[in-house]
Amino acid sequence: MASMDLADLLQDNGSKIILFVWDGVGGIQAGPEDLTELQAARTPNADRLVAEGCCGLLEPVYPGVTPGSGPGHLGLFGYDPIEYQCGRGALAAAGVGFDLQAGDVAARLNFCTLDSGGNVSDRRAGRIPNEECQRLVAKLADAIRDVDGVEVHWAPVKEHRALLVLRGEGLGDGLEDTDPQATGVPPLQVQVKDDSAETARAAEVVRKVLTQAREVLADEEKANMVLSRGFAGRPNWPSVQERFGLRAAVIAGTPMYRGVAKLVGMEALDACNEVAKDVASLAAAWDDYDFFFLHYKHTDKAGEDGDFEAKVAYIEEADAALPALENIGPDVLTVTADHSTPSAMKSHSWHPVPVLLSARTARRDAVAEFNEIACIQGGLGLRPSTHLIPLALAHAGRLAKFGA
Amino acid sequence: MASMDLADLLQDNGSKIILFVWDGVGGIQAGPEDLTELQAARTPNADRLVAEGCCGLLEPVYPGVTPGSGPGHLGLFGYDPIEYQCGRGALAAAGVGFDLQAGDVAARLNFCTLDSGGNVSDRRAGRIPNEECQRLVAKLADAIRDVDGVEVHWAPVKEHRALLVLRGEGLGDGLEDTDPQATGVPPLQVQVKDDSAETARAAEVVRKVLTQAREVLADEEKANMVLSRGFAGRPNWPSVQERFGLRAAVIAGTPMYRGVAKLVGMEALDACNEVAKDVASLAAAWDDYDFFFLHYKHTDKAGEDGDFEAKVAYIEEADAALPALENIGPDVLTVTADHSTPSAMKSHSWHPVPVLLSARTARRDAVAEFNEIACIQGGLGLRPSTHLIPLALAHAGRLAKFGA
Repeated sequence: MASMDLADLLQDNGSKIILFVWDGVGGIQAGPEDLTELQAARTPNADRLVAEGCCGLLEPVYPGVTPGSGPGHLGLFGYDPIEYQCGRGALAAAGVGFDLQAGDVAARLNFCTLDSGGNVSDRRAGRIPNEECQRLVAKLADAIRDVDGVEVHWAPVKEHRALLVLRGEGLGDGLEDTDPQATGVPPLQVQVKDDSAETARAAEVVRKVLTQAREVLADEEKANMVLSRGFAGRPNWPSVQERFGLRAAVIAGTPMYRGVAKLVGMEALDACNEVAKDVASLAAAWDDYDFFFLHYKHTDKAGEDGDFEAKVAYIEEADAALPALENIGPDVLTVTADHSTPSAMKSHSWHPVPVLLSARTARRDAVAEFNEIACIQGGLGLRPSTHLIPLALAHAGRLAKFGA
Repeated sequence: MASMDLADLLQDNGSKIILFVWDGVGGIQAGPEDLTELQAARTPNADRLVAEGCCGLLEPVYPGVTPGSGPGHLGLFGYDPIEYQCGRGALAAAGVGFDLQAGDVAARLNFCTLDSGGNVSDRRAGRIPNEECQRLVAKLADAIRDVDGVEVHWAPVKEHRALLVLRGEGLGDGLEDTDPQATGVPPLQVQVKDDSAETARAAEVVRKVLTQAREVLADEEKANMVLSRGFAGRPNWPSVQERFGLRAAVIAGTPMYRGVAKLVGMEALDACNEVAKDVASLAAAWDDYDFFFLHYKHTDKAGEDGDFEAKVAYIEEADAALPALENIGPDVLTVTADHSTPSAMKSHSWHPVPVLLSARTARRDAVAEFNEIACIQGGLGLRPSTHLIPLALAHAGRLAKFGA
């Protein structure tokens, strides 16, 4: 099927859509009764919404492809994650909630270990803990704030990973990685991918930043240098307002999800990963937006931890939040996930995720349970995640007829 | 999945295919028993064909997109409606069954009201009734038949809408709308989109036609001018003969459906929207064609009217026509819809439509009822409408093996 630009069909009828993402909720059979976490959980509210509405399964990126959190959410937002890719630096910025501006140049840094000969002996500096990363980033940020009139920003990411952002006039992002992807060799010199004056200027600044960083870290035992990867500017993507006519808000307590949502033009509301408070935050902004992306993190975390019982408990907690959302009065309420995170696998997986869509205009199917197996029989079928937004818009009455 | 050109696989084995379209037959739950119209209707023949054959659901244009009649049918004919779009003028011509020729230039007209200052005060002339539209079109057609050696044709469409067609040598269709899309301003002047001599000539003719039309309509109270939109020539699409090797006929009592079918090269047989007579018309031409598109209009009309019971009754009437079609002996008999028209919504909708395919070569699924909910479990699955023609060709033995 060709993809379709919906812009010409949009009509603003004042309707409201809630997308409630139970992160990583999909699973595979495991646990004491050989069920998926959703099968094992008691989800009376989601089951009722499925019974009254329609359901199916969404495939996030591509058959068999396990999505990271960015691509998984972009699909749900109606952005084909294969088409909408951004550089590692911009993703890292989104991931830590760094508010990347147009013109900024971001890169992911890895703390590494150089031996006495200046060769990389450990590309990840022994996977230093988060606290150590924070200390080192603070040390760098304290020492290196400005180079040649360019602001230099630093942020810790996780373990050996950090973020570097240059902010100034006339900077290009056409820079090669300095990570040699090997040990026993020195870090690569900063090379340019294009001949633009902007990239040349950025290269000069990065060279100075890295030289200074090496000096600042010289007395560290493990993390005595940084390698840079994926220089990138803020992606210039059309917003959900432009593409789908939606004033959109994100309620997500974890910076990564706020960051991805902001890349497509959503505005961030208060959020703290306590679902009752996050629902209240959503409700308080009800009049100001058309579309609300509410993120629930705990299911994914429990899956990553391999904790079947915890994931079941968190599913039940998310389910218990549904009546409060229904009471706000959305025209469309849809519950799904960005990807599966089976606790039996302790990681994200490629398995399709169940989706339910509740709306007055829904065609009811025969399914009355919200889980991966029951939803195979649902009327929405098995389809790419990118179909969800068009379907939500349609059920909300926001798409006009195509053609006469 | 990439789309595929079937031309190299075609083989003419003399088999016959009937596509029986129950216009707008899909619904959502409503009515006294909270069923869809198809669930409520008694359809013993379609149920038997499903039991003996295979079924599924078709998504007409794109997820969530509500098709007009043109796109809805193009998909069933194997023409991706996103790829095969034609201008409003050409669609209007198809819609009223005007036989647009290559080289013609068509435009949709809206009767409008100009105030004493020459500004548009009502872009739709108070949505005049059909009879008034017919009277005004006759008045124009009587007065303006030829301009600069170009034939000028007029046809009423519906309410304030009409059709203008110019027929002559060397006319281009690169003209902008004269509809200002606003009131309080005069109609726009005819502007060209390209520098061709053909478009310049068409622009000159249209200017004169509109000037004369204003004079002819000067004494009208409401509809004292026309605004033009969507100048377009006949689309130059490959025919179903070229693409699918099918000598194809349309049996449709309503001009719109004949018009769309003719755009893809089908030949029109007698039709009157009485199903028994239309089936007889099909049977009489059995030896002359490979593919028969039989259109049943009443289901859509009842849906648009919001008349659940009438739609149920019309479904039963269409079902009763199936044995007569079976008796003619098609190799493939398929029944489906161009789109849903739930009577609860009184309009077309985006919901997928059920499809049944009866053929000696079908793989039977477990479904034995023809409705939207039962067909979710069908062996054809949920798929784009454009898949139907390849499947029909295959079941008719008209597609050779691909690759060695």
